[in-house]
Amino acid sequence: MNISIIRYILGWVLNIEAVLMLFPCLTAAIYQERSGIYFLITMVLCGGIGILSTFRKPKNTVFYAKEGLVVVALSWIFLSIFGAFPFYISREIPLFEDALFEVISGFTTTGSSILSDVEALSHCMLLWRSFTHWIGGMGVIVFILAILPNIGGGATMHIMRAESPGPSVGKLVPKVRVTAKILYQLYLGITLIQIVLLLLFKMPLFDALCITFGTAGTGGFGILNSSCGDYTHAQQLIITIFMILFGINFNVYYLLRIRKPKEAFRCEEARAYLGIVAVSIILIAVNIRHMFPSLLESFHQAAFQVASIITTTGYATADFDQWPEFSKTILVILMFIGACAGSTGGGLKVSRVLIGVKEMGREMRSLFHPQCVKVLRLEGKKLENTILRSVNAFFVTYALFFFASVLIVSLDNFDFTTNFTAVAATFNNIGPGLSKVGPVCNWSGFSPLSKYVLMFDMLAGRLELFPLLLLFTPSTWRKNF
Amino acid sequence: MNISIIRYILGWVLNIEAVLMLFPCLTAAIYQERSGIYFLITMVLCGGIGILSTFRKPKNTVFYAKEGLVVVALSWIFLSIFGAFPFYISREIPLFEDALFEVISGFTTTGSSILSDVEALSHCMLLWRSFTHWIGGMGVIVFILAILPNIGGGATMHIMRAESPGPSVGKLVPKVRVTAKILYQLYLGITLIQIVLLLLFKMPLFDALCITFGTAGTGGFGILNSSCGDYTHAQQLIITIFMILFGINFNVYYLLRIRKPKEAFRCEEARAYLGIVAVSIILIAVNIRHMFPSLLESFHQAAFQVASIITTTGYATADFDQWPEFSKTILVILMFIGACAGSTGGGLKVSRVLIGVKEMGREMRSLFHPQCVKVLRLEGKKLENTILRSVNAFFVTYALFFFASVLIVSLDNFDFTTNFTAVAATFNNIGPGLSKVGPVCNWSGFSPLSKYVLMFDMLAGRLELFPLLLLFTPSTWRKNF
Repeated sequence: MNISIIRYILGWVLNIEAVLMLFPCLTAAIYQERSGIYFLITMVLCGGIGILSTFRKPKNTVFYAKEGLVVVALSWIFLSIFGAFPFYISREIPLFEDALFEVISGFTTTGSSILSDVEALSHCMLLWRSFTHWIGGMGVIVFILAILPNIGGGATMHIMRAESPGPSVGKLVPKVRVTAKILYQLYLGITLIQIVLLLLFKMPLFDALCITFGTAGTGGFGILNSSCGDYTHAQQLIITIFMILFGINFNVYYLLRIRKPKEAFRCEEARAYLGIVAVSIILIAVNIRHMFPSLLESFHQAAFQVASIITTTGYATADFDQWPEFSKTILVILMFIGACAGSTGGGLKVSRVLIGVKEMGREMRSLFHPQCVKVLRLEGKKLENTILRSVNAFFVTYALFFFASVLIVSLDNFDFTTNFTAVAATFNNIGPGLSKVGPVCNWSGFSPLSKYVLMFDMLAGRLELFPLLLLFTPSTWRKNF
Repeated sequence: MNISIIRYILGWVLNIEAVLMLFPCLTAAIYQERSGIYFLITMVLCGGIGILSTFRKPKNTVFYAKEGLVVVALSWIFLSIFGAFPFYISREIPLFEDALFEVISGFTTTGSSILSDVEALSHCMLLWRSFTHWIGGMGVIVFILAILPNIGGGATMHIMRAESPGPSVGKLVPKVRVTAKILYQLYLGITLIQIVLLLLFKMPLFDALCITFGTAGTGGFGILNSSCGDYTHAQQLIITIFMILFGINFNVYYLLRIRKPKEAFRCEEARAYLGIVAVSIILIAVNIRHMFPSLLESFHQAAFQVASIITTTGYATADFDQWPEFSKTILVILMFIGACAGSTGGGLKVSRVLIGVKEMGREMRSLFHPQCVKVLRLEGKKLENTILRSVNAFFVTYALFFFASVLIVSLDNFDFTTNFTAVAATFNNIGPGLSKVGPVCNWSGFSPLSKYVLMFDMLAGRLELFPLLLLFTPSTWRKNF
């Protein structure tokens, strides 16, 4: 294990975090809030450690997959700990575990909150809370790769693979660094479009910024106690559309940008994703028709909640915990499917589900024709055995950690629906679940043990399990492994 | 598709069913119950059709995997329809869908009942109900293979594989027919030991027979409204031990019988299974300690329920729906793990879970050493790619049909815990779930649609999905496929 390169990269992560905290500082200055001081303190601390760690460039730049996975897992943990500081030292969130929960929920773009009264937070805290979604959505190390040419060397692919969601990272262009840059440009571009649109439809700037950060990162922290329930229908519709857009594989936008619309529209995963969204909206809209004055209204509500859950954003315009069981079950299923790989969304990812369905079809065919082995394809490309193997291992690992988490959380003795959907909502980085963690509830009722388990689940969900699991594997830390 | 051989085998299935109904007829004669007449009527009908279908041996005995799968699925459906007749025409279960539900629940060794008052049934009906568990436990076609040398020819392996639970059928001896015979001998032997033991501990003969049938098939139909709650502690302990024994791979008993105890004790799956049982009992016993007067009593209750759920039997001595959430969650997890492959139990099977865990370990190692591919082994044997592929396809298919079923059942608008555990309990052939399908409840509240979905789940669970799915695949019925 090359400790010095890990220290060096972690130092850069802290430097970046210190710089990013200028944004809430500026907010505090505009609103003349005293809480800004706590961001300044954290910036000094964060930047100080960061500069000390990056002062000397490591001589040994050897960097393997192992270092890549470890550095990604550790930097998310460090980001979260320092990110929680302002909440904790300002006493706006008095318990450290709650502050940490809130920030991990932010960076992992989960959006589960322990706050019962969001509106009591100061503006700079609210902005930082939503901004963590935007940072976490595309990943901070990918950002470092994009701006610092001198880190990583040939091993950037390992980092990118560890931090990016989905079973296989499609490099847009041969160079990882260029890919990272293009991704961030697209991300920033679509974010700006949403902000402008919301402003055009008369949303206040502060709200537009926070809501867009939550949409872009598919996070879901709102700044009102009603989440998005108090915005106008037009504003909600814009949010719905952008939630769906941010759940699509960014490859599609790249293909559109380089004027290859044909290839873009041929994307198998995006088409399956949009199909699932459409079918779910129709089923739910019909099922909840009797709860709303018009069919249009029920479609509007269904569309918002479906977009919010499948992209794992987690905004709400209605308390869907009160909806019929059929609609709730569809939403629970969408929680697991999740968005496209290569988007900012969480969950299992549509491409993994597609691969699973294809494997099922092949198995049924092979029962008839045991001798004939069919090659599976996704997006027209042959699915290599290593990808199939890792997708399958992912399913199993996912199920194991899922049920282990439900078991530990069940020690708090809440009902099964609460425990099951709480783990589903954190593991898939969604936000709200059902019953005691429904869209109008908060997560403060869990014991510290459960909170730490759920924090682990959020990180494991965002980093797709393995980087985080490796941190807890003794052999990772053995010298000559 | 060779229709004539399918007709011929189905005819034999009906003949056997007619013969098996002699047993409830005899019971009716002993208890002087008029309901016996309904079994006689069904026997005539069943045997009549059976004899007509088997009168002429088919000339074309070509028999492929496809015919094997189709014949297994169809014979389970025919068995169930004719098995439901006595309940329905006697009006002891007035609705046909309820009678069918009850009998499918019997043959698939599920043990979910739509009856609110079991004790109201006549003795011959109760006996038939429990006897279906025993028949379904080992499988009726395996029985036909064992006694009729002239069917199947070289294709017996296809049938055996389709009907036997688990990812790979271990032939005990090279000849399938001999394997089937040995299995039935072992099954009968252990059944007799349990009956004798229960009689020694003063259980009435009728109870001992019915309870043992339910234990041996891991079914779980009781003949008292209290399930097994009213039996003495000693009797309950015997049932506990035999439930655990019937959940072990029958290979182990075969190895013991041919005096190879070393090989028997080396069985990886059985050891994992017993380990899971032991850990679950300890965790639950400690968790429910406060609900019972002594630690011994809480261990007794924990052991009974754990054995009942992991083997997917479904007897109950306590209303575990009232237990703390932690214990309930353990039981729900055990529902999915299930018993060993090659036993009469259901669920995913311990060996599949073991294979999954091994795949996870390999994936983590391969993240460190991308070049090195490790061979996975189970029971010391290399796991072939085809087995891994089919296990993975099984997991995916399982999850898909699981959630689809929950979705349809949710149309009845019961709570999520009810829907989720109802599907878990039928798909894994267990019997009781939680909430509205808890151990003291019955299943009559579901709509006809839900009941048919749950019947499908029971059959799909018992036949391990694919045989039943093929029935609904158009290409199965195409002529030249």
